[in-house]
Amino acid sequence: MEDRIIIFDTTLRDGEQSPGCSMTVEEKLRMAKQLERLRVDVIEAGFPIASTGDFEAVRRIAGMVETSSVAGLSRTVLSDIDRTWEAIREARKPRIHTFIATSDIHMTHKLKKTRAQVLSDAQRAVAHARSLCPDVEFSCEDASRSDMEFLCEIAEAVIESGATVLNLPDTVGYSVPAEYGAMFRTLRERVPRTSGIILSAHCHNDLGLAVANSLAAVENGVRQIECTVNGIGERAGNAALEEIVLALKVRSERLRVKSSVNTEEIYRSSRLLTNLTGMVVQRNKAIVGANAFAHEAGIHQDGMLKSALTYEIMTPQSVGITHSTLVLGKHSGRHAIKKRCEELGYNLSAEELERVYGEFCTIADQKKEVFDEELLAIVEAVEPGAQEQYRLEALHVSTGTNVRPTATVELKSGEDRLVDSATGDGPVDAAMEVLRKCVSDVADIRLEEYHVDAIRGGTDALVDVRVRLSKDGKILTSRGARADIIMASVEAMIAGMNRLLREEHENRGKNPR
Amino acid sequence: MEDRIIIFDTTLRDGEQSPGCSMTVEEKLRMAKQLERLRVDVIEAGFPIASTGDFEAVRRIAGMVETSSVAGLSRTVLSDIDRTWEAIREARKPRIHTFIATSDIHMTHKLKKTRAQVLSDAQRAVAHARSLCPDVEFSCEDASRSDMEFLCEIAEAVIESGATVLNLPDTVGYSVPAEYGAMFRTLRERVPRTSGIILSAHCHNDLGLAVANSLAAVENGVRQIECTVNGIGERAGNAALEEIVLALKVRSERLRVKSSVNTEEIYRSSRLLTNLTGMVVQRNKAIVGANAFAHEAGIHQDGMLKSALTYEIMTPQSVGITHSTLVLGKHSGRHAIKKRCEELGYNLSAEELERVYGEFCTIADQKKEVFDEELLAIVEAVEPGAQEQYRLEALHVSTGTNVRPTATVELKSGEDRLVDSATGDGPVDAAMEVLRKCVSDVADIRLEEYHVDAIRGGTDALVDVRVRLSKDGKILTSRGARADIIMASVEAMIAGMNRLLREEHENRGKNPR
Repeated sequence: MEDRIIIFDTTLRDGEQSPGCSMTVEEKLRMAKQLERLRVDVIEAGFPIASTGDFEAVRRIAGMVETSSVAGLSRTVLSDIDRTWEAIREARKPRIHTFIATSDIHMTHKLKKTRAQVLSDAQRAVAHARSLCPDVEFSCEDASRSDMEFLCEIAEAVIESGATVLNLPDTVGYSVPAEYGAMFRTLRERVPRTSGIILSAHCHNDLGLAVANSLAAVENGVRQIECTVNGIGERAGNAALEEIVLALKVRSERLRVKSSVNTEEIYRSSRLLTNLTGMVVQRNKAIVGANAFAHEAGIHQDGMLKSALTYEIMTPQSVGITHSTLVLGKHSGRHAIKKRCEELGYNLSAEELERVYGEFCTIADQKKEVFDEELLAIVEAVEPGAQEQYRLEALHVSTGTNVRPTATVELKSGEDRLVDSATGDGPVDAAMEVLRKCVSDVADIRLEEYHVDAIRGGTDALVDVRVRLSKDGKILTSRGARADIIMASVEAMIAGMNRLLREEHENRGKNPR
Repeated sequence: MEDRIIIFDTTLRDGEQSPGCSMTVEEKLRMAKQLERLRVDVIEAGFPIASTGDFEAVRRIAGMVETSSVAGLSRTVLSDIDRTWEAIREARKPRIHTFIATSDIHMTHKLKKTRAQVLSDAQRAVAHARSLCPDVEFSCEDASRSDMEFLCEIAEAVIESGATVLNLPDTVGYSVPAEYGAMFRTLRERVPRTSGIILSAHCHNDLGLAVANSLAAVENGVRQIECTVNGIGERAGNAALEEIVLALKVRSERLRVKSSVNTEEIYRSSRLLTNLTGMVVQRNKAIVGANAFAHEAGIHQDGMLKSALTYEIMTPQSVGITHSTLVLGKHSGRHAIKKRCEELGYNLSAEELERVYGEFCTIADQKKEVFDEELLAIVEAVEPGAQEQYRLEALHVSTGTNVRPTATVELKSGEDRLVDSATGDGPVDAAMEVLRKCVSDVADIRLEEYHVDAIRGGTDALVDVRVRLSKDGKILTSRGARADIIMASVEAMIAGMNRLLREEHENRGKNPR
């Protein structure tokens, strides 16, 4: 049997549809580029029928991605499938992914259809998809709670209709490993034709079992795993890509399969997703959490010093976490910063370096040492090749007991100077409000969400602010990283406002397809 | 076979020893009280030999806990065991837990001992522990990478010496479920005497498999699971208690075992731990994450409206997450707040209610609506029965471009008024610095860590600040919750300073035991 596991990444579909994870088209494109660098086999780019934004994201990702397959999701409705095909047809390796629920509970309560109707919908959808696209995946939603007889019946039917991949998801995160594995074993025994296609697992983590269920499926003949970076997704999320891939790698002698994923891109992929969505991974998250490779207890540190093997089953380097004693300071020049950024995986253009260097100097001026994670925050906060419409000229903020928090700002836009002041519930609120007021003649920009993190746990450390702004239904996230929380917030807000206005400008210049 | 699973909570030992999770004695006592309310069977309270603080925490927890067993950890060194016994002997149900590594890699590189030496150390330690205490657990550190023959040999020996519980940990998080389960199956086949004791699992989550491994152990005869709240612990943490307990409950028809844990205390336990340590759980964390019960995608919401069963395998209520349409506002009185707090699980004393009400009014004055999570933040930030040495009389903070962030403060301490000002890297840093300066004649208080979260994602929402302060080696965490980040930081800092000084005062009044 083939020993290669297809890694099907659904960060941009199942992940993106969960609360707090929505991304703009531009953000999805950035993530898709990183997923390709990570060498996932399939990128599920979205659900084209869900919205024009989703459609557009899938279409643009399909046009951009060079090596991975690009999948689009659709219900078994034929017009859905046509819409998905329209979105992915330009991909080098397109895949139509269609699904319908097969559990009695879903068919009765949600679909209000009989088994026969569901069977016929599935066959028709797969046949239609196959007439458009050589690669067609069919999913039995809520498969783990479906009747086994019916699963076998539908498997026969969709293979007959041309499905190339059959996915049996644990939609509600209900299965335990032995049970989920047994479902595939039984299916393969009863439906010998499954040997001609790829079987796929898709697990949710409601009981903390998503990764284990996926591996149990692999041990029972499954050769595709659907997963997401950082395990984002509905409710408790999907199986985490990084955990799956490292389990396959660390335990390859036992599992006897392998993936093509470039594990050294894992940490960067995790960080990028967090930066785009603001969905933070907890410190004790496996593989990508801040503590994942930390050995605190004295007894462990002692063991680690004697031999890393005693407690370390994989190295931080293997997932792209670089260790370095190099700490930058106010005397570090452009060259040192460029070099450190390269080691951290960022090749900066001359213009980007200039902007990073400028930010770096401001921060290094306030602090003695600048750590890697702080440098990364600066790099990631600097927009690639940004043209700024608004520039901050001056800001003053005042607050206290018996003082209404007040912010005064002066912005420059071309030759114009905009000066205004506002009050708020706190100094950050006042500063956000005055910026919004300054541009209100030009654009109605709303602050949808505000997140803040102290990068290293002190008040003199860099503060990382992410804001989510919207304008006429368009939403984006931007960041600011400074030692001063108010300055970081203002930086994030101005960067976001500039991007919203710039993208609007660019879109006006484009011919609609 | 007995169908009850013993839940052994090691939040205060294996959890507490991981980076970012250290707690003071008082904090451990609060957590231990909650663990007893959660009805865990065993509370591992610490590692008494590790420090006098650890010893003291174990001793005080042992004296306080009424229903759960209280375990203390010790190496196989006899003086360690004596020290542990000294700490736990006052417990109603004391347990000595002793361990030594049994894998070749640990014995060779870390212990530099032969198998025969390790075997003899284990026997001697267990026999000695058993001479002191009727309940003795023995752990083979790194059992999952140990030679099976040797595991069987050591199991025979420690049972002979009087061990009542035998724990085989997956110390480095390396096992996969089938393998970890097989280890226990083989042990039970080869060492029939294991039927007279309790077998125990202890799993780490480095590959995301801790919960699955624990369940595989249960399916192979294990009747104790070691776990931690929120899955905190070394590196990627331990098996998460909440995931284990809910898996046992939701899938009881398959697993055919049960625990005595009161699942309705799970959410409160998770929150308390986060509040004490600042270790945040990610939104997509199973059971206790903010998204765990959220159904975002249109297709899911549609299903949920038609029948919750389509996507919900457990209810938020079952883990103590209360849903309510009741939103409090500026017109809500003491009675409404008291009632809502009770529904959220907090019975406030008259004095506490007064303080909560005061904070609530300040916040309700700034915002139209106060949500449950904001009310909880207020309640949790209000110290039980706090006597304040320092009170904030006035504060003014100013910052901006070309302004050195400056804070001026006036504190009252009895009849004294302290006025001072300071600058900092940002306004929060300046405010923290001026407070530190104000009390520097009395105490050298240091800010060790600073964390900030926006409770709901807007700038006008409540900001939750946690500071970790130290004074002469004593460390504690305190909180502040306000709409203004600077005010929240100042509140947290003053509350923490008062507590540090108060506890010092109380300790001076005590006779050392």
